[in-house]
Amino acid sequence: MHSVDELIKLALKEDIGSGDITTDAIVSPDLEGIGDVIAKDDFIVAGLDVARNVFDHLDPQVLFSSTFKDGDRVKNGRIVFSVRGKLASILKAERTALNFIQRLSGIATLTRTYVDRLKDSNVRIVDTRKTTPGWRGIEKYAVKIGGGYNHRMGLYDGVLIKDNHIAACGGVRIAVNTARKQIHHLVKIEVEVTDMVELAEALSAGADVIMLDNMTPDQIRQAVKKINSTALVEVSGGVNLDNLHRLAETGVDFISVGALTHSAKSVDMSMKIQNH
Amino acid sequence: MHSVDELIKLALKEDIGSGDITTDAIVSPDLEGIGDVIAKDDFIVAGLDVARNVFDHLDPQVLFSSTFKDGDRVKNGRIVFSVRGKLASILKAERTALNFIQRLSGIATLTRTYVDRLKDSNVRIVDTRKTTPGWRGIEKYAVKIGGGYNHRMGLYDGVLIKDNHIAACGGVRIAVNTARKQIHHLVKIEVEVTDMVELAEALSAGADVIMLDNMTPDQIRQAVKKINSTALVEVSGGVNLDNLHRLAETGVDFISVGALTHSAKSVDMSMKIQNH
Amino acid sequence: MHSVDELIKLALKEDIGSGDITTDAIVSPDLEGIGDVIAKDDFIVAGLDVARNVFDHLDPQVLFSSTFKDGDRVKNGRIVFSVRGKLASILKAERTALNFIQRLSGIATLTRTYVDRLKDSNVRIVDTRKTTPGWRGIEKYAVKIGGGYNHRMGLYDGVLIKDNHIAACGGVRIAVNTARKQIHHLVKIEVEVTDMVELAEALSAGADVIMLDNMTPDQIRQAVKKINSTALVEVSGGVNLDNLHRLAETGVDFISVGALTHSAKSVDMSMKIQNH
Amino acid sequence: MHSVDELIKLALKEDIGSGDITTDAIVSPDLEGIGDVIAKDDFIVAGLDVARNVFDHLDPQVLFSSTFKDGDRVKNGRIVFSVRGKLASILKAERTALNFIQRLSGIATLTRTYVDRLKDSNVRIVDTRKTTPGWRGIEKYAVKIGGGYNHRMGLYDGVLIKDNHIAACGGVRIAVNTARKQIHHLVKIEVEVTDMVELAEALSAGADVIMLDNMTPDQIRQAVKKINSTALVEVSGGVNLDNLHRLAETGVDFISVGALTHSAKSVDMSMKIQNH
Amino acid sequence: MHSVDELIKLALKEDIGSGDITTDAIVSPDLEGIGDVIAKDDFIVAGLDVARNVFDHLDPQVLFSSTFKDGDRVKNGRIVFSVRGKLASILKAERTALNFIQRLSGIATLTRTYVDRLKDSNVRIVDTRKTTPGWRGIEKYAVKIGGGYNHRMGLYDGVLIKDNHIAACGGVRIAVNTARKQIHHLVKIEVEVTDMVELAEALSAGADVIMLDNMTPDQIRQAVKKINSTALVEVSGGVNLDNLHRLAETGVDFISVGALTHSAKSVDMSMKIQNH
Amino acid sequence: MHSVDELIKLALKEDIGSGDITTDAIVSPDLEGIGDVIAKDDFIVAGLDVARNVFDHLDPQVLFSSTFKDGDRVKNGRIVFSVRGKLASILKAERTALNFIQRLSGIATLTRTYVDRLKDSNVRIVDTRKTTPGWRGIEKYAVKIGGGYNHRMGLYDGVLIKDNHIAACGGVRIAVNTARKQIHHLVKIEVEVTDMVELAEALSAGADVIMLDNMTPDQIRQAVKKINSTALVEVSGGVNLDNLHRLAETGVDFISVGALTHSAKSVDMSMKIQNH
Repeated sequence: MHSVDELIKLALKEDIGSGDITTDAIVSPDLEGIGDVIAKDDFIVAGLDVARNVFDHLDPQVLFSSTFKDGDRVKNGRIVFSVRGKLASILKAERTALNFIQRLSGIATLTRTYVDRLKDSNVRIVDTRKTTPGWRGIEKYAVKIGGGYNHRMGLYDGVLIKDNHIAACGGVRIAVNTARKQIHHLVKIEVEVTDMVELAEALSAGADVIMLDNMTPDQIRQAVKKINSTALVEVSGGVNLDNLHRLAETGVDFISVGALTHSAKSVDMSMKIQNH
Repeated sequence: MHSVDELIKLALKEDIGSGDITTDAIVSPDLEGIGDVIAKDDFIVAGLDVARNVFDHLDPQVLFSSTFKDGDRVKNGRIVFSVRGKLASILKAERTALNFIQRLSGIATLTRTYVDRLKDSNVRIVDTRKTTPGWRGIEKYAVKIGGGYNHRMGLYDGVLIKDNHIAACGGVRIAVNTARKQIHHLVKIEVEVTDMVELAEALSAGADVIMLDNMTPDQIRQAVKKINSTALVEVSGGVNLDNLHRLAETGVDFISVGALTHSAKSVDMSMKIQNH
Repeated sequence: MHSVDELIKLALKEDIGSGDITTDAIVSPDLEGIGDVIAKDDFIVAGLDVARNVFDHLDPQVLFSSTFKDGDRVKNGRIVFSVRGKLASILKAERTALNFIQRLSGIATLTRTYVDRLKDSNVRIVDTRKTTPGWRGIEKYAVKIGGGYNHRMGLYDGVLIKDNHIAACGGVRIAVNTARKQIHHLVKIEVEVTDMVELAEALSAGADVIMLDNMTPDQIRQAVKKINSTALVEVSGGVNLDNLHRLAETGVDFISVGALTHSAKSVDMSMKIQNH
Repeated sequence: MHSVDELIKLALKEDIGSGDITTDAIVSPDLEGIGDVIAKDDFIVAGLDVARNVFDHLDPQVLFSSTFKDGDRVKNGRIVFSVRGKLASILKAERTALNFIQRLSGIATLTRTYVDRLKDSNVRIVDTRKTTPGWRGIEKYAVKIGGGYNHRMGLYDGVLIKDNHIAACGGVRIAVNTARKQIHHLVKIEVEVTDMVELAEALSAGADVIMLDNMTPDQIRQAVKKINSTALVEVSGGVNLDNLHRLAETGVDFISVGALTHSAKSVDMSMKIQNH
Repeated sequence: MHSVDELIKLALKEDIGSGDITTDAIVSPDLEGIGDVIAKDDFIVAGLDVARNVFDHLDPQVLFSSTFKDGDRVKNGRIVFSVRGKLASILKAERTALNFIQRLSGIATLTRTYVDRLKDSNVRIVDTRKTTPGWRGIEKYAVKIGGGYNHRMGLYDGVLIKDNHIAACGGVRIAVNTARKQIHHLVKIEVEVTDMVELAEALSAGADVIMLDNMTPDQIRQAVKKINSTALVEVSGGVNLDNLHRLAETGVDFISVGALTHSAKSVDMSMKIQNH
Repeated sequence: MHSVDELIKLALKEDIGSGDITTDAIVSPDLEGIGDVIAKDDFIVAGLDVARNVFDHLDPQVLFSSTFKDGDRVKNGRIVFSVRGKLASILKAERTALNFIQRLSGIATLTRTYVDRLKDSNVRIVDTRKTTPGWRGIEKYAVKIGGGYNHRMGLYDGVLIKDNHIAACGGVRIAVNTARKQIHHLVKIEVEVTDMVELAEALSAGADVIMLDNMTPDQIRQAVKKINSTALVEVSGGVNLDNLHRLAETGVDFISVGALTHSAKSVDMSMKIQNH
């Protein structure tokens, strides 16, 4: 998960800038201690390694330990992790580390809620590209920790032909055929369709995956029947905890949920320092 | 707002990586068109310049226009902004631009809700350092657009002595005095207190601003009386839309609300392309 | 092709460093002129945009023009491209620009030789990851310009399970199944096999693509028969212009050729300056 | 040789990008093992430190060992180097490390062939600026490992007045005199000449080094006689293994060979993994 | 003080570039030794950690030791610090390390001279933003080591309304009021005034700090009386060692001295190597 | 002079950081005006292009004009340069631009003083590597503007064998011979000597340039006689305006003066804004 380094640097720079004037003024640079981060909520923890990296960037001498691993359920009041070392370093990195782990745990917790609703089903909950800019990799990681599956990482590792592409290139068939010629042979082609006409065209063009966009459960059921296992099927648009079960029962393979990343709330934690 | 450049580069890199294989395969590089971004919600818009910059980073030839300016209320169904230029460029930047403006507008909209509740009061709603790592500057900007006020930007431009600092350095008085000697003369000193004893000590040490942490309205009222305008007063911790009014009536100067940035949901928008 | 920017900067920095002391000393900074780059060989040109970018990085005022486009056959003695502007800028960028276009044209020319040998076949010549470090994107671009096809760009956009992976994880079946669970649903799985036993296992595990590594034409023919269109087939290892035709006749879909990028020679060009 | 760091980062980024999806999916992160890199050719090895650095960048815990040092002759079948550590790290860095060392060894091997032809002569084989962009430092290093000598590193550390400079500034004499005034007193001035008239002018202007460009052995012999040790003499242009000996016998000091870097082929190696 | 890293990298790059050709040619890479840096002047030392960092950047194996700490007075002839390790590393970093510590010690020494003149006074000597571009943080650190105090670090952490701002916005009162509304509540507002009229306006607008610009001692005394402790008072402009005492006697709180950083001379040191 | 870009970015970042809170609060972003920079001293101006670049980095719309060019003598009270554009941009870049041009003009002015003392001599005043870290290129430029000459730019473009090198490698002769074998043929070899024995050894080893370190005029005269034009001669160490003439009369070619860069004071300028 070392691709988060650049974001951690940006985050420490924006918070510390030319220096933590409070800590530098009043906390002796030699003072050592322990900081315990306490859960103020029940949640699925995600981002322990990111938090560890934040402290490590600031001061490699700070020791980080936790009885949890990403994906564990943490109860309100438990110590999520502890850091031991120079108090000045701990205080400077505290807020940035917490801001990371609180948000990532929020995403994992929300994902787990969705996943648990479909416990007895083979349908996969997948994420989208509606992630926080700069956070793509770690937010998709948090979704996996929560029990979800990832969709493509970005525009570079999967072909998804959407309405705007079709409009721009003149039809589903030509879009699929052109893509097949240009892209390398390890990438599948997914096509977004909104009705049965587009679906028929996508299937006959040989799409590997069909995305059914904003359809009703009845329309979806009809589409699944028509596809008849010749392509994988993904449902997208307007998914929430209320309609999730009904969508899953239609026989699709994947349900993608933008809210996992664009509308998760941070979970609550706070740090308590003990001097040595 | 050019400090957001580094984040925009990171965001485009993580989404596009080695190339948008769908668009590169099927959309002619010469094709031009217009993309209209439609509101799917009512919201306060924030981040128009950030969205413009995203397109500009990818292709400076794309023209961006909007009838709105940051802070305007946008109704569901309205065109938030339009871009005109190479369709390939528009399609590559679309998701990143929307991810930015949807989140920033979410923050501005939530902030406006808080601010509107205190319409007839002089109390200021202020943000915290509980921002999304990498987004400090633009999230605080969105808070201002929503009608809120900023607290310090980071650890470098304001002294806030919290419980952990006091524990680390041995008392409020020594903390304030040491800070006064070390920091330059244009920075005020704020002290976080949790009870009347700490408050008394902070006041006698000459704190410029007092933060009352997690107190009840009655305790706050008592504290305000004791402070008696010798310092500015900020309330923090556990603030929500329900208790906001009661907190504001206690006579404090500032109420800080972490939720503005750590728990805002993105507002909904989507882009529609027209070929030329 | 803007991902080459970082490499261009590195290249200009390593050549110019603290300054072109010859040009700075003896060529007046106001002097303008034209530089014509002459072909000293017959070749397929590739990298005109890269060359243009090199001049553009150094001095955006330099005008670049060419009667050719990438993929054209250029005869010995023809002007490949011309630049017009400050002579000092032209002289400083000359070597770097030529080093790029000479190598990229070398790759395109070699690829074209391979492709022309299979003119009447549907077999695709594909490249490998044996590219010059730092040059992945532009070398794969040059292969396409030469008429070849790209394999995956890197480790991030395609699954290729090789002997070392299988050794590390305990068998073909477990490797394919685990990959299927972990990777997103737009990526295919390719498995490298060296004999019929491995092939059988890979097919039964549901591999999407089979790579036949270092097999004889007879073995390949047998494997193709066994695969029977249930997976795509790639041949790899020891391919050269002599055995190319025999390999293509076996019925495979792709032949991958490392030599396209790791053993292409630069084509020859040189610049001639005219003062104004 | 730490200037290669930037190139190594670029190379790992372009190959691994958002992650090695094959290895991450199927190789346990805790699994350790050994990778042996086997020579598939006879060659002069160069770039062991670069290869070591590639593994080190990816995972500093990987141990690298070799019984060879740069410049040694390695026989087909020998283990060039071994790495020991996490298999996942070894597999991710393998291709990049090999791409570096195979190319650098190719350059050293080709250089050694040239150098061995002149074993009984004092003439030095020198490289040129016709190097792979981004690779200047390490390719020139490989030339030295092969027994060649370096010409200037770039435009910044030596004055070489070529035909285009002379055309731009109005004559050899003025070029040399102006350079002498502008450059610092530790840099020599080399002038490229194509005939006896230019040679006479360069000598009378006091050039420290003369480059004879594309002359026949007879012309070169005549020029050497005229120069009569008042300047060092370099031969350049159209040098190959066939005419090398004849050029060396003319009495020149240096023969520069662009092919050493622009047309060397990679030597062949491959890695074999053993699990623990 | 780790913000100096970028400057150290820039400095090593500009001095070493593609390599220290003298040391690389004639000093064996295995040779170890000690370098003693000898004071050639009496001075206050500042920048020992910066010098240590320079060696550390180049070669983390070099050991750095000193019997002094920043702020100590060093006598001519004493060993300021010693380094032990590879001689090649020591020789390459020597000049850069000395260039840093000689300049920083020059600033500390000059500051100490100013501070010593006001030994019996409570007036603080403060620095300005007239620092060497790139050196802001370390020059302000050297001023503190010399016994001075820092003014704001930059434009981001303090409001100082100067004549040009007032001209641009239409008056002192509106400037102060607007600033009060825009800036966060931990930042004070300082106003530069040049006469009694401006002073009156600044005071009535509620400025927290007044800067008296280029006033005579008599004018300053009159201003101090008028301010009457309702704001802090800073004197600026034309301060030197001759008029320092007279300015301090006027009753102001701070005297700012640009010369501390823009006109300090380097102190003299040189390194002596001993082989092992 | 574009190599100064990195330093300019560093300088703007350290001064502006997260924003110029004064200007952003009280100066309307649309307000335009002119800033005139007035000389408060007589000096030789240097760094007009650097100052222009500072404004250009911040806001490319700011127009920069000057009636002077680098090297001109500017009288107290004259307008050095003017900028026209957004006042906010002008105010944010002002201090950084002035800090650059004031220091560079200080160096040019001091150099001119040295150069003018030797007006009737052929001896060249040259600089040293005792420059401000990060400023090597522009400080050496300022020396040239003042009429001085440059020594080598850094460790990479000239061989200077000093006492520490000789100690490390075992003697002058072996040092010169080894260097001659390792370095490319366009670089001269300079040797630092402190007495006649070392001088004899350096001459017999074939040094191209001799540096006489810390010798008296009589010793220098004796050395020059001995060298007898077989090498160039540089004097170094303890040079000042008082002994400059005596040193120049000894017949040496170069006198190097560290004080030009390590002890120059900034000249005085200030900006005056006019609103439109």
